[in-house]
Amino acid sequence: MTAELIAVDWGTTNRRAYVLDGDGKVLRSERDSKGLLAVAPGGFPAELAALRAELGQFPVLMAGMVGSAKGWVNVPYLSCPAGIADLAGALEWCEPGRTAIVPGLADPAGDVMRGEEVQLLGAVAAALAPPDSLLCQPGTHCKWARMAGGRIAGFSTAMTGELFALLKEHSLLADFLTGPVSDGPAFRDGVRAGMDGRLPGLLFRTRAAALLGRRSAQDSASYASGLLIGNDVGGAAIAREEPVFILADPHLGQLYSAAVAIAGGRPTLIDSHAAFVSGIARIWKASQS
Amino acid sequence: MTAELIAVDWGTTNRRAYVLDGDGKVLRSERDSKGLLAVAPGGFPAELAALRAELGQFPVLMAGMVGSAKGWVNVPYLSCPAGIADLAGALEWCEPGRTAIVPGLADPAGDVMRGEEVQLLGAVAAALAPPDSLLCQPGTHCKWARMAGGRIAGFSTAMTGELFALLKEHSLLADFLTGPVSDGPAFRDGVRAGMDGRLPGLLFRTRAAALLGRRSAQDSASYASGLLIGNDVGGAAIAREEPVFILADPHLGQLYSAAVAIAGGRPTLIDSHAAFVSGIARIWKASQS
Repeated sequence: MTAELIAVDWGTTNRRAYVLDGDGKVLRSERDSKGLLAVAPGGFPAELAALRAELGQFPVLMAGMVGSAKGWVNVPYLSCPAGIADLAGALEWCEPGRTAIVPGLADPAGDVMRGEEVQLLGAVAAALAPPDSLLCQPGTHCKWARMAGGRIAGFSTAMTGELFALLKEHSLLADFLTGPVSDGPAFRDGVRAGMDGRLPGLLFRTRAAALLGRRSAQDSASYASGLLIGNDVGGAAIAREEPVFILADPHLGQLYSAAVAIAGGRPTLIDSHAAFVSGIARIWKASQS
Repeated sequence: MTAELIAVDWGTTNRRAYVLDGDGKVLRSERDSKGLLAVAPGGFPAELAALRAELGQFPVLMAGMVGSAKGWVNVPYLSCPAGIADLAGALEWCEPGRTAIVPGLADPAGDVMRGEEVQLLGAVAAALAPPDSLLCQPGTHCKWARMAGGRIAGFSTAMTGELFALLKEHSLLADFLTGPVSDGPAFRDGVRAGMDGRLPGLLFRTRAAALLGRRSAQDSASYASGLLIGNDVGGAAIAREEPVFILADPHLGQLYSAAVAIAGGRPTLIDSHAAFVSGIARIWKASQS
């Protein structure tokens, strides 16, 4: 098949572009660091023209922070529940028929996402997860979404990854968090303690345990990561034996899988890039009919 | 009375020195920014000599991070329960009879403090708080201590103030936390939500609420501070109508007082400098007998 669409996952730090054919198959993909932070105000049209010059003069559908106040256009949030048809009907057209941005979603309980909605809906559309299921997208801001009938019924966010990065880079704990993070006894101890515990005290005691010689400094990063991920997973209201579909790279995916299992759920890792491509191709198709 | 002792509260950032007479009365006090961060390794004896040259050639008793691995001497922690006589018997003498450091305390549950123990014991010794009571020292690392029979029975720490500073300076929330923090409806809403809630999600929704126009950006800092302080107070197991003695400056003292009242306790603010002076004078006296 021939190329038909350029799909762009345009985030704060990175940008990923896929050239898709009419069946949503990836013909080519590119990743660069031209996230929002690397684009001057007003510079988005020129950046996209450069991308088209490289990948071909096809229609472009974008998702992610490119639709935020610091992106190309501040696209209003669509309210949950929302599915592929809802997003397709609410695209923000930068150039009519040729260049559009997928709106982000708002949860009525007071939460927001931009970009993750495409992955979530794509995962179900590609049958990587069932139409009624619990999905998790670990990362800087970890998203938990309840899918119902293939649509996003509601979601919540925890700044788990960002808190870990802040602690590792800027906090008094930084000296104690230099070791690697891996799934092992220290990580799992952290998960169990963090699941129903209060983080500001538990994090301080991570340092105290190293000072008192109760846990090696080498294990402290795994333990602290366990505290944060355990607290995140503990807040997700996972039912006993409930399947949880995790969209993450293998490292973070393994950590969340271990924590979900400790919480009593059944984790399954799914491919977040395949989910994104599946979602954006279907949103584009729905917008054309 | 004539001067008899120089008492030094020597912390990471600041140093405070008091010249005391034989009754523990303050004849003179000085505050400077010669905390640990401003003293080169091995530079402590010279810094103290300069202080004596200024304040007089008296015995010196120090407390705080000066007794840590990054201070003058890494003084071993004393284990709780501990009182004035225990600390006096475990002073680390840098110069016999003339210059000493008060040891920090460890709680067997895995927590540590350096410097706060002097304030806590001094507060009770000066009758600012009863011998059996709950004390709170808000700050970068907020300490909660249970006193029993005038001794420190046990304590725990929450990195409440440090987390707020990290969020304000380095996080994605930073843009939303530029307003003043004050005790008002937004702060109190935060306290109630944070008391039994999970911070990583609640903090993200602070940003979402501003993006969705549900709370003014101006109120976000008060709300986020409320979340953190509420979570801290909620973990302190305050009994209904229990008195809580708070050692803090007026601003932080007011915020913690409001949160303690919401948690059902009865807050009383006490003077942390008077408590320190009372404690260190008594520790010195006990070490001389």
